Amino acid sequence: MITLVIGGSGFIGSHLVDELLAAGHRVRVFDRSPERFRAASAGVDLVQGDLGDTALLAEALSDVGQVFHLVSTTVPATSNLDPAADIRGNLINTVRLLELMRAAKVRRMVYLSSGGTVYGIPQTDPVAETHRLQPISSYGIVKVAVENYLMMEAYLHGLEPVILRASNPYGPRQGHGGVQGVIGTFLWKIAQGDPIQIWGDGSVVRDFIHVRDLAQLCVLAAETGIVGTFNAGSGAGHSIAEVVDTIAAVTGRKIVPLRKEGRGFDVPRVVLDISAIRATTGWAPTIPLQDGIAETWAWVCRQGVI
Amino acid sequence: MITLVIGGSGFIGSHLVDELLAAGHRVRVFDRSPERFRAASAGVDLVQGDLGDTALLAEALSDVGQVFHLVSTTVPATSNLDPAADIRGNLINTVRLLELMRAAKVRRMVYLSSGGTVYGIPQTDPVAETHRLQPISSYGIVKVAVENYLMMEAYLHGLEPVILRASNPYGPRQGHGGVQGVIGTFLWKIAQGDPIQIWGDGSVVRDFIHVRDLAQLCVLAAETGIVGTFNAGSGAGHSIAEVVDTIAAVTGRKIVPLRKEGRGFDVPRVVLDISAIRATTGWAPTIPLQDGIAETWAWVCRQGVI
Repeated sequence: MITLVIGGSGFIGSHLVDELLAAGHRVRVFDRSPERFRAASAGVDLVQGDLGDTALLAEALSDVGQVFHLVSTTVPATSNLDPAADIRGNLINTVRLLELMRAAKVRRMVYLSSGGTVYGIPQTDPVAETHRLQPISSYGIVKVAVENYLMMEAYLHGLEPVILRASNPYGPRQGHGGVQGVIGTFLWKIAQGDPIQIWGDGSVVRDFIHVRDLAQLCVLAAETGIVGTFNAGSGAGHSIAEVVDTIAAVTGRKIVPLRKEGRGFDVPRVVLDISAIRATTGWAPTIPLQDGIAETWAWVCRQGVI
Repeated sequence: MITLVIGGSGFIGSHLVDELLAAGHRVRVFDRSPERFRAASAGVDLVQGDLGDTALLAEALSDVGQVFHLVSTTVPATSNLDPAADIRGNLINTVRLLELMRAAKVRRMVYLSSGGTVYGIPQTDPVAETHRLQPISSYGIVKVAVENYLMMEAYLHGLEPVILRASNPYGPRQGHGGVQGVIGTFLWKIAQGDPIQIWGDGSVVRDFIHVRDLAQLCVLAAETGIVGTFNAGSGAGHSIAEVVDTIAAVTGRKIVPLRKEGRGFDVPRVVLDISAIRATTGWAPTIPLQDGIAETWAWVCRQGVI
């Protein structure tokens, strides 16, 4: 059987494909485009199309044993600009995907949700999966709705979903659009000699996970046959100011960030409680933040922008 | 200022309009059609249109001080047949309504959510507002998503929402389509001499609230200036079998229901904990189930089907 990675050309997807190939899986990628930062991996079947293309998606599900769904057409920072587009692009298309999977009798799905947005402003630190879901961005609201459709499909039609509420992934091959992934954005800016900007005073705390740790967890989630909803982070918090300091140490540059006004939808502190996934699978993140940033910096430098 | 009732021609809406007029409000109704069971109420301005008609809705918001949003294009029993339509008709259109309200600076909104579906299968009895939200129907999932967009709008843009998670309303002017409102459906069938059908063994328990009690609560919610999410039920549970017995007693008919196989999306028991709304507003339901059924039966009989 084939493992289908929807969004397999993206940042997380490309690392997941690597880990799947290393573990001996037959991999098909469904994505709007090929990978951006490297040539296609040998042996990977790429189906190029939009998540809304139901006919193509149905074809792509042929001979598939499990699906990884990593696509998001929006990011937290911009989802509120057009919630209706967010809902159409992510929620409606995912509901259709579930219907196609039901028809094709594909039961296993690993869905990448968002530990940074589904809880809203956490009432506990760290925040566990049982924390109430009160998102304050369209991105988070749609993630919660997708999670609920997955759980309904499980209850009514036997889907076996693994929902991974990822924290903030970073690492090589993260883009530099400036709207997602503060570490990638900072490193690209520095490499290009541009100033970096931070929102507020840099005290915002996030849980950063190296993309390879996350990709390995995705594979484990599929291979162990677990079902349920799990936080997927490092379990540790770092402020934006700490990240800037670490980047300064790694790059050897003096960094003076420009400060912009804080954004209303930014949650002040989110650190995920990862004890559930540890207890269930034995997985634990292995790459310390400083090492991961150093690796990412080396990768950015190799991209030839300096 | 005008009070806009979106869905004001419907079952609950028509009673809400009565209560608003009695309390001296100027009322505008936005609905696809006029009321079904009676002539238009004097002094009510009817704007006939679809919730998706943004231009018309924007017009209808002129001079409006508060909005009641009672529209649902789906019911729990059928929402799973086409979740994408459910999402488009209810979620996307409501998100657009919120944008229009923001532009028109209308801050007060009473939204009718669903205490019977947002919690999924309750882990407590009765179920309080803090219970986790794990709906197992598209209807419930969309209600949760709408609630989340309302709370986000409150957090980011100052909306003052009152979310009422209604239980199962019944009473005069409930339709008899057969997909919503078991009491209304049963009474119409009996009046027409048709057999009634129940799913499963009749042990399913619901919290029935008389529509007038609910409408009075809606008015109170608007007038007291409260903000938040509240269960809106009777706080008492009655099984379908009990309802059938009560109907038999009220109508004086011998009733032998036809039994159909249980439905996967039916929650076995939902009784709402209404202590929060009682404590906040002093409201309490006043109409006992037997009295309400007797009143509804008298109304059905007056419709001339016998």
